[in-house]
Amino acid sequence: METPLRWTIAARPTARELVPEDYALDSHPAQAPLRNGDLRVAVLMMSCDPAQKGWMENAGGYAAPTEIGDVMPAMGVGRVMESRAAGFSVGDLVEGRLGWAHELVVQASDMRKVQDEPDAPRLALGLLGTSGLTAYFGLTRVGVPQAGDTLVVTGAAGAVGSIVGQLGKIAGCRVIGIAGGPDKCRWLTEELGFDHAIDYKAEKVKQRVRELAPEGIDVLWDNVGGQMLDDLMTRIARKARVVICGGIARYQQQGRPPGPSSYFNIVFKSARMEGFLLSDFTPDHDIGRDRLRRWLAEGRIVQRDEVVEGLENAPQTLMRLFRGENFGKLLIKVAD
Amino acid sequence: METPLRWTIAARPTARELVPEDYALDSHPAQAPLRNGDLRVAVLMMSCDPAQKGWMENAGGYAAPTEIGDVMPAMGVGRVMESRAAGFSVGDLVEGRLGWAHELVVQASDMRKVQDEPDAPRLALGLLGTSGLTAYFGLTRVGVPQAGDTLVVTGAAGAVGSIVGQLGKIAGCRVIGIAGGPDKCRWLTEELGFDHAIDYKAEKVKQRVRELAPEGIDVLWDNVGGQMLDDLMTRIARKARVVICGGIARYQQQGRPPGPSSYFNIVFKSARMEGFLLSDFTPDHDIGRDRLRRWLAEGRIVQRDEVVEGLENAPQTLMRLFRGENFGKLLIKVAD
Repeated sequence: METPLRWTIAARPTARELVPEDYALDSHPAQAPLRNGDLRVAVLMMSCDPAQKGWMENAGGYAAPTEIGDVMPAMGVGRVMESRAAGFSVGDLVEGRLGWAHELVVQASDMRKVQDEPDAPRLALGLLGTSGLTAYFGLTRVGVPQAGDTLVVTGAAGAVGSIVGQLGKIAGCRVIGIAGGPDKCRWLTEELGFDHAIDYKAEKVKQRVRELAPEGIDVLWDNVGGQMLDDLMTRIARKARVVICGGIARYQQQGRPPGPSSYFNIVFKSARMEGFLLSDFTPDHDIGRDRLRRWLAEGRIVQRDEVVEGLENAPQTLMRLFRGENFGKLLIKVAD
Repeated sequence: METPLRWTIAARPTARELVPEDYALDSHPAQAPLRNGDLRVAVLMMSCDPAQKGWMENAGGYAAPTEIGDVMPAMGVGRVMESRAAGFSVGDLVEGRLGWAHELVVQASDMRKVQDEPDAPRLALGLLGTSGLTAYFGLTRVGVPQAGDTLVVTGAAGAVGSIVGQLGKIAGCRVIGIAGGPDKCRWLTEELGFDHAIDYKAEKVKQRVRELAPEGIDVLWDNVGGQMLDDLMTRIARKARVVICGGIARYQQQGRPPGPSSYFNIVFKSARMEGFLLSDFTPDHDIGRDRLRRWLAEGRIVQRDEVVEGLENAPQTLMRLFRGENFGKLLIKVAD
């Protein structure tokens, strides 16, 4: 094996877009022996998530703080190379917060063992990982869809949005996805079973939603924020639930964009807007995984992803996510 | 009795402040005989409410639409002068949507009979009317305060805010009121039992809230919107409930003010922002009135109000509400 490499955080991308210079590539320093409870992990696959930019900025309070010079954090799947933790053996597959590196030392208590099955890394990072669980718990516990509801999903062709829409169909909703470009829209309706898709780059979103959902939006799943959220909140139905999952618009501009000036519509409509963290539902994550796995086996949900090969391509790949270029889950393959 | 007079809507004050020319005073046209189900009511007292400006603008969908030339609507208490409705007799006190007039013909089904007791009109329009019920149901059913929570109330010296804070104390909360001017602030802490009051005209609200509530705001009751709401939402605690009751800032400026750019904090804090209409809780209004009446009798809640005499002063009086000049409930007395 070649010298193990890693990407560290070189700059905080606060209030601007990511650039390649935000990261520095170097070879691993010689590693100290493992302490009790540690694992040495060979990284196999890494997830690209909008939250990673927040982690680099230390925004909000999402997760453990980062420092300049830290290995760039990423959710990932790896194989245990050395273990000083009970219950973990060499060769086990594990999933959790890893980083952009060929190998890492992590605490076993932060890792979860993953069933060794075909496609394990893809599933563990997609449908059965953060993306799928975010969609499952955000929709079922925060959005609380009822059969017959109209569900509108922004960022619908993304890793989470594409699952939210499929879960909405299973729950008996009429599902409208909003995405950029005709290829994504076709994918939503033809492969994922969305009832309608709106191409925000070519169509007037507000007007199309008025046509497609004249009685208003019962559940609005928002991954975008900004003007899109503002427009959609003018179309909510009585007792609507607006689930704030992401705010990709926040990452694309200088300074903090204004909030939705139509927020006051939640008074006229007795509606609510609510946020959540996946960790709110930690005790129930296995319930979510079981459901998602069953629907996957039954063919009621599909996971589409895009796998880019090579640790060296990590910075460019993550930037594609913020440009909205991916269909479904975007993954980086580090090793077989 | 002199000729009965009335104020009609002469202009819609959309996206601007109210001006005296928004109303026209005239004498009542000769009235047609009552139809079945109608009441003729002599107006005794009228409530001043922020929603009245929304009614004039036909904003949102709050209530029955208004037309230019309509009698200016107002919640009020009156005495039945003539009845063609079962269950209503001449001399009964009634409360409901009346208007700026000496007398009006209304449908009995829109009116509620009020107990004829000392101070009946004041109570029926304040603590036992829209203001008190809005505070009661908004706080208990939407804000859901728990003992030990920190409750922050904006517009705290207003009709609703002053009751919300007192209800928060009964529920075991630490209550911080935000109001304009030292007199209002003193009133909140010395007479109403708020733990703290912040004078937004003299103090830095965000900094004071950080000092007074270092662990964050559990329940935020907002009557104001705009910059105040944006600032306070940066200080919410995990699982906070932000109750949107009013948005007086919306009435004070051209165009729609931006929404809270800190709205995304509801994700980091797994919090929610929720609106409501009093009519959501209609089946339970009597429960609310019973509770409020008991706490009033026990001296655990006080109602302060300010009564301006004379129908002719109605436009100027309502404008005072939007300038934040009132302490507690602002009422217009039309007749004894």
